[in-house]
Amino acid sequence: MNKKKIINDPVYGFVSIPSGLIFDLIQHPYFQRLRYIKQVSMTHLVYPGALHTRFQHAIGAMHLMSLAIVTLKAKGVAISEEEEEAALAAILLHDIGHGPFSHSLEHTIINGVSHELLSSLLMDRINKDFEGKLDLAIIMFNNKYQRNFFHQLVSSQLDTDRMDYLCRDSFFTGVSEGVISFDRIIAMLFVVDDELVVEQKGIYSVEKFLIARRLMYWQVYLHKTVVGAEQLLIKILQRAKQLSNSGVSMFATPAFSWFLTQKIDKSNFLADESHLDWFTRLDDTDIMSAIKTWVQHEDKILRVMCQKLMSRELYRTVMSNEPFSEELMAEVYRRVKSHFHASDDELQYYVFTQAIHNSAYDIHQDTIKILMKTGEISDIAEASDLSNLEALAKKVQKFTLCYPKELGYISIPVKI
Amino acid sequence: MNKKKIINDPVYGFVSIPSGLIFDLIQHPYFQRLRYIKQVSMTHLVYPGALHTRFQHAIGAMHLMSLAIVTLKAKGVAISEEEEEAALAAILLHDIGHGPFSHSLEHTIINGVSHELLSSLLMDRINKDFEGKLDLAIIMFNNKYQRNFFHQLVSSQLDTDRMDYLCRDSFFTGVSEGVISFDRIIAMLFVVDDELVVEQKGIYSVEKFLIARRLMYWQVYLHKTVVGAEQLLIKILQRAKQLSNSGVSMFATPAFSWFLTQKIDKSNFLADESHLDWFTRLDDTDIMSAIKTWVQHEDKILRVMCQKLMSRELYRTVMSNEPFSEELMAEVYRRVKSHFHASDDELQYYVFTQAIHNSAYDIHQDTIKILMKTGEISDIAEASDLSNLEALAKKVQKFTLCYPKELGYISIPVKI
Amino acid sequence: MNKKKIINDPVYGFVSIPSGLIFDLIQHPYFQRLRYIKQVSMTHLVYPGALHTRFQHAIGAMHLMSLAIVTLKAKGVAISEEEEEAALAAILLHDIGHGPFSHSLEHTIINGVSHELLSSLLMDRINKDFEGKLDLAIIMFNNKYQRNFFHQLVSSQLDTDRMDYLCRDSFFTGVSEGVISFDRIIAMLFVVDDELVVEQKGIYSVEKFLIARRLMYWQVYLHKTVVGAEQLLIKILQRAKQLSNSGVSMFATPAFSWFLTQKIDKSNFLADESHLDWFTRLDDTDIMSAIKTWVQHEDKILRVMCQKLMSRELYRTVMSNEPFSEELMAEVYRRVKSHFHASDDELQYYVFTQAIHNSAYDIHQDTIKILMKTGEISDIAEASDLSNLEALAKKVQKFTLCYPKELGYISIPVKI
Amino acid sequence: MNKKKIINDPVYGFVSIPSGLIFDLIQHPYFQRLRYIKQVSMTHLVYPGALHTRFQHAIGAMHLMSLAIVTLKAKGVAISEEEEEAALAAILLHDIGHGPFSHSLEHTIINGVSHELLSSLLMDRINKDFEGKLDLAIIMFNNKYQRNFFHQLVSSQLDTDRMDYLCRDSFFTGVSEGVISFDRIIAMLFVVDDELVVEQKGIYSVEKFLIARRLMYWQVYLHKTVVGAEQLLIKILQRAKQLSNSGVSMFATPAFSWFLTQKIDKSNFLADESHLDWFTRLDDTDIMSAIKTWVQHEDKILRVMCQKLMSRELYRTVMSNEPFSEELMAEVYRRVKSHFHASDDELQYYVFTQAIHNSAYDIHQDTIKILMKTGEISDIAEASDLSNLEALAKKVQKFTLCYPKELGYISIPVKI
Repeated sequence: MNKKKIINDPVYGFVSIPSGLIFDLIQHPYFQRLRYIKQVSMTHLVYPGALHTRFQHAIGAMHLMSLAIVTLKAKGVAISEEEEEAALAAILLHDIGHGPFSHSLEHTIINGVSHELLSSLLMDRINKDFEGKLDLAIIMFNNKYQRNFFHQLVSSQLDTDRMDYLCRDSFFTGVSEGVISFDRIIAMLFVVDDELVVEQKGIYSVEKFLIARRLMYWQVYLHKTVVGAEQLLIKILQRAKQLSNSGVSMFATPAFSWFLTQKIDKSNFLADESHLDWFTRLDDTDIMSAIKTWVQHEDKILRVMCQKLMSRELYRTVMSNEPFSEELMAEVYRRVKSHFHASDDELQYYVFTQAIHNSAYDIHQDTIKILMKTGEISDIAEASDLSNLEALAKKVQKFTLCYPKELGYISIPVKI
Repeated sequence: MNKKKIINDPVYGFVSIPSGLIFDLIQHPYFQRLRYIKQVSMTHLVYPGALHTRFQHAIGAMHLMSLAIVTLKAKGVAISEEEEEAALAAILLHDIGHGPFSHSLEHTIINGVSHELLSSLLMDRINKDFEGKLDLAIIMFNNKYQRNFFHQLVSSQLDTDRMDYLCRDSFFTGVSEGVISFDRIIAMLFVVDDELVVEQKGIYSVEKFLIARRLMYWQVYLHKTVVGAEQLLIKILQRAKQLSNSGVSMFATPAFSWFLTQKIDKSNFLADESHLDWFTRLDDTDIMSAIKTWVQHEDKILRVMCQKLMSRELYRTVMSNEPFSEELMAEVYRRVKSHFHASDDELQYYVFTQAIHNSAYDIHQDTIKILMKTGEISDIAEASDLSNLEALAKKVQKFTLCYPKELGYISIPVKI
Repeated sequence: MNKKKIINDPVYGFVSIPSGLIFDLIQHPYFQRLRYIKQVSMTHLVYPGALHTRFQHAIGAMHLMSLAIVTLKAKGVAISEEEEEAALAAILLHDIGHGPFSHSLEHTIINGVSHELLSSLLMDRINKDFEGKLDLAIIMFNNKYQRNFFHQLVSSQLDTDRMDYLCRDSFFTGVSEGVISFDRIIAMLFVVDDELVVEQKGIYSVEKFLIARRLMYWQVYLHKTVVGAEQLLIKILQRAKQLSNSGVSMFATPAFSWFLTQKIDKSNFLADESHLDWFTRLDDTDIMSAIKTWVQHEDKILRVMCQKLMSRELYRTVMSNEPFSEELMAEVYRRVKSHFHASDDELQYYVFTQAIHNSAYDIHQDTIKILMKTGEISDIAEASDLSNLEALAKKVQKFTLCYPKELGYISIPVKI
Repeated sequence: MNKKKIINDPVYGFVSIPSGLIFDLIQHPYFQRLRYIKQVSMTHLVYPGALHTRFQHAIGAMHLMSLAIVTLKAKGVAISEEEEEAALAAILLHDIGHGPFSHSLEHTIINGVSHELLSSLLMDRINKDFEGKLDLAIIMFNNKYQRNFFHQLVSSQLDTDRMDYLCRDSFFTGVSEGVISFDRIIAMLFVVDDELVVEQKGIYSVEKFLIARRLMYWQVYLHKTVVGAEQLLIKILQRAKQLSNSGVSMFATPAFSWFLTQKIDKSNFLADESHLDWFTRLDDTDIMSAIKTWVQHEDKILRVMCQKLMSRELYRTVMSNEPFSEELMAEVYRRVKSHFHASDDELQYYVFTQAIHNSAYDIHQDTIKILMKTGEISDIAEASDLSNLEALAKKVQKFTLCYPKELGYISIPVKI
């Protein structure tokens, strides 16, 4: 009997590991590290179920890729075994460079080193361990393969990455608005001239997918309390780095200590391999173990922020369609100074503002193509019978303001 | 122990029958009749699971009404026991006047008597049986009660009727695009000045509801094969009535015979109570038992149409955004005459066209109101951050053309 | 693009039609007839959602068969294309001989002609239409193929028929106790020496399957109200046949009239092909259209029974572990005579008793085989670590007694 | 508008926080700590979705308790507001004393202090903070309240604790065998003489519940790889404590350091409040941050065990129905010594054996009571028509043996 490894995934049921190479990639320590990196960082403070990890997401996206390939082959698209395995490996490793609380780290401790660059560096390392077996996967991932649809399945506006994270994030948050019909979308995929297209009768499923993504942005990813919690985390890391730079001893795991004490930018990160070595040992545990210990730190600002995060006494977050006025900010700062006796330098830890934006669909690049019943290829924005797509393409910008609840309610004229 | 009657509903799980009056209404023969009237008539020829009935739908909508009332009361809205029972009865009976394949009958055998009128007549009869206990329910149903929100929960652009049929139709068809978060919407309902409103944070759920409804229209209710099958049914009934009028003997149950042989319009329907008596004995079974028997009828046109419906050899249906040109229609008629030796009078049974239209949201009347965090009431079209609602409000019109597959593919320039 | 036909099934999502032959079989009028035969006859009077049909069940079982074949092939079991198509056709047609309310008909109007015989006769007819393409399918169905596992997948104690009906019946009734992990069971199937086996680690899933089946028997298939409704239907048909035999004119469709007026037994059924011809035109509609018309029949006994069925004023049903005593029966008969002025001959229509029994697992024949990790094949009853299987194998017998509610509650010493 | 706090729970949908007291309990730092303690410790190494926490479980069980109370009140059971809130608080706090990887800690670092004792101590502390508002909750929790059914709902063989963890663990593992019909069971609950009973028609649902629990034990809780991973964790903690005791410096958070360096038993734990203080700062993060750091520890035995856990190169685990023979163990030890050059003292870190056992139902104490239709109360084991319960009551014992994969496959005669 040919043994087939199977993983139980609550989202899809059984997920088969399609080949020995894929199995070995999953076993690699760099991939196992993803077990300890949550997919949606601090979101569990609002949606307690959202503790799922990039490990699960990567395997889920790989599963959807394998379903897509089965469908395309059944419709007569020629796909070689080598291409199939490369596509599976490329999607499996697409997030390999994510660190803990990625975006927070990128803005604080690992300044200027993007997770895309990290993914690329780590894929190269793994490829060495696998003696070049990932060559084609890396070419596909970097969009250098002439058959575009493989890259489009990995990364585009209708890729297996987005399909999985919408399914998965809505499953674990319980926000049913994000549920999409991934099986229906995949059943409608086809390839024309090596470009990914959707059969015309799948157009409503794609619209629903785009709308689900928009709803998940506003209900989950950019939920004001989630945004507030992640901003608080960034401020904690900034304060910790500031203290560390000024010579204060900070409890942390060795891996986290490395990044707290080093000055890192893109060029010295690339110059010294030990940065990447330490990076591969870093996950959510390192950050959280430090923060929970800093709850008793001597620095009051750090201590209070950590206490608030750990006991979920989050800052109050206000969201507005317009930037907050200078008058308002002056009033907030005045209150902070009076209540917390904070210096000008310290204000940044008590009040944060941020601009966030989102558009569900980008009509300018890499658009979703529809294969009409007539045989023509049409952009979805033209094929759809409603102007919905234009609406979805509109970039929505919002502004957040976070401040400690101790200040009481501040009357803020919010335009929504 | 107070016994509570419970119904197993695969959509919601357990549904409690909230009171003795509601239980007795369900037992009434007029309501039991709904067990034999499918909710979505011929849709099962495309989605085989869609055999659910108006009986199930009415009970489901009553269940959502009871959830809505629990929510509103928990938020402090004063609702008396009498009002509660009236609202439950009103929604339970809202479809009591539906006949088998309602819209087909309305256009053929029971000309000019709408199901709304029939519902009203039957509610009055039931109210007599219940010695006036339905007085307030009927007032609410007819939108004469001063506390508008009760009527709005029964019939508006965000009512428990629509919520149930979207949930139920998507459950039984398997079209997951129609799934809505009814619990989330209900949790966001509130009442201000006796008008139904939705709390601001429920805005995305309402948007999703409107979009789900639009998708269900195009994927299910107005699916071209469904439309084609229902048109075929109408033509069968027209032919049968025509034959009956010309003295041909038609097999049918006594109830169906009544309507095949009588000339009915609104005024003589209202004048003679026996019409309504016979109507209460009519359900899907009467129609289907006749059609399956007519498969062997001597009239060739009737016989062939019935054969096609029973063995699901449906007409080919083409859907276009523009009316079909006279040239095209002439060509189709020419082919029909040549292939079937059909006379001019008979052409209508071989080729049908129809204009269908839908808008997901009507911005002009009875709009959905949002209760902003500021306390203001705002129309959803203004409160939403995208122009989606305007898009959804656009009336979409389509045209269908059905012809027998024996004619082969006819090249039709379709604009989509 | 190779077009693949897809059916939306709410239970499994998308079901692909695997080949042109299978597609054509589904289109055959004998198979389309199954659209109008409910899977669980009168069960919808207790579980309103249970309106699903043998059409859906047959396609669902075919889908599970195709999943099973994919799994077995992936594990290295050699299966030819011809075998695959034959297995799919065999399961698709396994219920083709079912009539409306099968068991009721078998005991009344079509005496002594089993649905297994009817299936066999109809498969032969279809095979003629398909010029022998079903030869192998019929051999498999009749258990004459040397590779046993194909027949075992069609019909055994762990076949795709049972897997589908448990999934489907629990889906449409809403009785979640019947949910089984069909994907998990199928993933554990294997073949040794052409016999179907289950891998050892699938043992708990098989136990769960057997238990789910037992629970569905007692909660659904043998639910006392369901049993009562089906008994009532049998009595209606018996009375109608009796009246018809005595020369009373009975409204019915031509197909149903045939069976009401003919005296049929196995030998004359086989001798005259017209019996089978008429049988292929018979479905639930024929029976129900007659019953609803007989609500106004001149025979009081028939009329009252039909009224009770149509308005769901069912007989009271009592279930006991022991036969009802002669004293009790005498008392019940006495009350019937007094209340309804029924003659001795008529008593049978007012009071019915029935013995029903069920065992979840038969340890004596065609047992489920487990492939141990050691390579040995073991019977599941031995491989399981609990004596559960023995318990499940016990034949449970119960006795039902139905009588009209007009008699009031009759105190019956019931042993449970 | 009365504001009602709502939590999104992917298992049940919306969960309402029923009162201000319950809301404040959830906010308490001791309860927030449960956010960082996984419900099923190392199970995620086998079922990657199983990252859910005791925080979620406690809220879920509280939700089921509120549903049960609504049901009982609707059936006429008198329950005062005070009793209701006490029951909700008792179930919410029932796991408050759980530490990270509870059972591992109990056997290693916090010797002899059970989580039941810890729960009791922490409830008393919280009760002080809430000025005695938890008095009745604690009385119920400790089974001192005269109305037994409250304690039975918190802790018995059919309690809301078990109902929630079965639902939740099967949801997050994806093991559908564990799904139970909690709504159906709750709908069947009633109270007679202050004892919890189940109405007779709920008997099959209770059987299903017991069987689901048994299946979850063997497929999840006692899955051999899960057992192996948890044994490995225990061995890591034992080695760390041993090293710490012998003066080796161990990286750990302050809270974990406390327990690594202190000698704790029940009496000194109770004597010194600082033990409990430090305990309330301990969660999964502390343990995992140490283990991931020890991957580079100087002690080879500790280092290798930590590497294996972090990169999921788990020991091979064999499960048998009988103890492993002395001859076999001698052979395994011989191989370990030869391959790893391990001393006699070190053997315990390379080879572990364990006896595990489970019975799904205890027929001897606190049995489940059925309210028969006759009004009698019967034990479920007697009321059930099968001997299943006896089977389920049988205590099943199994033996596990874990050894490093480096030893190769060891042929072990396993009786299953």
